[in-house]
Amino acid sequence: MKIIIAPDSFKGSLSAENVAKALKAGFYPYFPKATYHLIPMSDGGDGFLAAMLHNTTGQLYPINVTGPNNNQITTTFATIDHGQTAVIETASASGLELATTKDPLHATSYGTGELIKAALDLGVSKIILGLGGSATNDGGAGLLQALGLKLLDHDGNVLSFGGAALKNLATIKTDAFDQRLQTTKIILASDVIAPFIGPKGASFVFGPQKGASEKDVNALDKALQHFAQVIYQTTQKDITNVSGAGAAGGIAGGLLAFSHAQLQSGVSLMLEMTALSELAQGADLLLTGEGSLDAQTELGKAPLGVLQTVKKVAPNCLCCGIAGQIKDVAQLHELGFDALFSCVPGVVTLTEALSATEQNLTQTATELACFLKKAQNI
Amino acid sequence: MKIIIAPDSFKGSLSAENVAKALKAGFYPYFPKATYHLIPMSDGGDGFLAAMLHNTTGQLYPINVTGPNNNQITTTFATIDHGQTAVIETASASGLELATTKDPLHATSYGTGELIKAALDLGVSKIILGLGGSATNDGGAGLLQALGLKLLDHDGNVLSFGGAALKNLATIKTDAFDQRLQTTKIILASDVIAPFIGPKGASFVFGPQKGASEKDVNALDKALQHFAQVIYQTTQKDITNVSGAGAAGGIAGGLLAFSHAQLQSGVSLMLEMTALSELAQGADLLLTGEGSLDAQTELGKAPLGVLQTVKKVAPNCLCCGIAGQIKDVAQLHELGFDALFSCVPGVVTLTEALSATEQNLTQTATELACFLKKAQNI
Repeated sequence: MKIIIAPDSFKGSLSAENVAKALKAGFYPYFPKATYHLIPMSDGGDGFLAAMLHNTTGQLYPINVTGPNNNQITTTFATIDHGQTAVIETASASGLELATTKDPLHATSYGTGELIKAALDLGVSKIILGLGGSATNDGGAGLLQALGLKLLDHDGNVLSFGGAALKNLATIKTDAFDQRLQTTKIILASDVIAPFIGPKGASFVFGPQKGASEKDVNALDKALQHFAQVIYQTTQKDITNVSGAGAAGGIAGGLLAFSHAQLQSGVSLMLEMTALSELAQGADLLLTGEGSLDAQTELGKAPLGVLQTVKKVAPNCLCCGIAGQIKDVAQLHELGFDALFSCVPGVVTLTEALSATEQNLTQTATELACFLKKAQNI
Repeated sequence: MKIIIAPDSFKGSLSAENVAKALKAGFYPYFPKATYHLIPMSDGGDGFLAAMLHNTTGQLYPINVTGPNNNQITTTFATIDHGQTAVIETASASGLELATTKDPLHATSYGTGELIKAALDLGVSKIILGLGGSATNDGGAGLLQALGLKLLDHDGNVLSFGGAALKNLATIKTDAFDQRLQTTKIILASDVIAPFIGPKGASFVFGPQKGASEKDVNALDKALQHFAQVIYQTTQKDITNVSGAGAAGGIAGGLLAFSHAQLQSGVSLMLEMTALSELAQGADLLLTGEGSLDAQTELGKAPLGVLQTVKKVAPNCLCCGIAGQIKDVAQLHELGFDALFSCVPGVVTLTEALSATEQNLTQTATELACFLKKAQNI
């Protein structure tokens, strides 16, 4: 029996890799002879780097960079393809989990720019940048500053960090901007469709979860509008309505304007990089999932991508979705899931559920394994 | 394929019969050709009468009796065995669900006595009395009063209703007590092991859930101690430490003293009455469960009884436990459950869970059916 275990992370609780391990731990005692393929997923946010490296040989580089609150942090990025491609995770330098305080008005993506610079210094020809999970709403301003872009106010002073300061932007000077970006292939891995600004843009959609009040959201959206305008004056590129430009607090938009970066679905990229469609050929059982699984929002995108990939190459595979919270079950069935299970063992608080994810996943996998074992004889 | 669906009720949420129906509703669309046996269970408490009648032909009798708070209620009892046996549910006359207010000091079991009297008036030779779910803590005093027993204080006045008044009991007069009780076989269906009094007795174990404060519990236990003492003086029967005498606020103890009543496991009785061991022969799948399923408390007794009965006659049957809340999973597996599933679809409040039990059960059964259908081809 071939078992594919390819979950996303359970956000705020367990990494995709540990989710996969917890599920295997439940199954293995009952099916010790099965072949297990553990393929952690990510859509570009937290866990992107770990997921990318799980099935690829890579080289990790520890590095000190500027955190989202202008704090110093130690983080890592990696190279793969024998050092030709860098893999960078926005969340690992500018992530909400690294924030000492939620401060979307001033949080900066500078650290992610430092990671890019370090990767360029290694001589890579391609950078895969995972977007998502950022604490920032600065349109990538900090990132671009780290790479030499000068953002000046009317008095010629350099802007301070964060999205709020962009309202004072008068001039962008590109003369010191790192020219290596123009010759480096940059892939922005993201499944966000939010544009740079507006009611469905970065500030309105993602600002609140980064700590922005209604007033902050309005101020940030206006600041990004102004940033986009000055960008247009500088580059003749209009990023305002580009789908996905709002990813990671607008980092996508900033990079689209000042490099040849291309947006690519993080899930698709991950599926490609992990060679899931080859590994899953002839699979009997798929276990995938995410903290919350539904058919309507961006949640569940990685599990859905996994499902569709597996179903193509293994049409008879029993495809199970496992999540903390499951919604839209009927639609999820229509999309191809054979069965969906919550790992929560009863009425518990969110805190209790989050703290017990690992054991709950193993338990749920145990029950499914026992059920499956006996079901095969009916 | 033969499917046995034999759950207990989900207390405070869904009757055993409706639990069984909800589970079938999830399975049926995927296994329309299977043979389904729906066998609702009860341990003697709420739902006892309905469960007893589900697989037996009976005659229902509507009747007005005294509710637990001395309020008038309309309820029913039944006869089976061509009118020879009456089936009475304590909860349907003196139940907590019928209480206008939780008042364990004064709540009376009088109404259950009226049901017994009505059954005797029909000429039955046997009464099966389901114990459990009562609002009362009167040691069956009210029940016995309804059958003619006189409980008098030192001034020769009749005691008022409820457990608290028993502290004033001076004399029990049996001359007007219904003598038909002596020639009628009385089965007390209960899985409670609490004795009449003491720290593990009726007042301490069940008083709090009936609304008794710590002070009330102490007062009630003392009152029952005194009641037991006067009973001993009257009948030479010592009920104080009889296991199970504390069932239904001590109704068991009162009847044991003044009749030839016998305690019998409600679950065993139900298993016998429903002929589960015959119906389950060659069963492929068992679905059983209860609101809360664990290996330690009295919860889960009916599902456990069902499990053991089914496993005896169908050793290869896939035995699933389904509950709102599942605890002690490892022990439940050791006891013979093949797989255990909570029907709760994620983090919800108890109120939300209770109000959605029916749909959650159907959904869980749907997932298991889909899983099973596909699993059979692996």
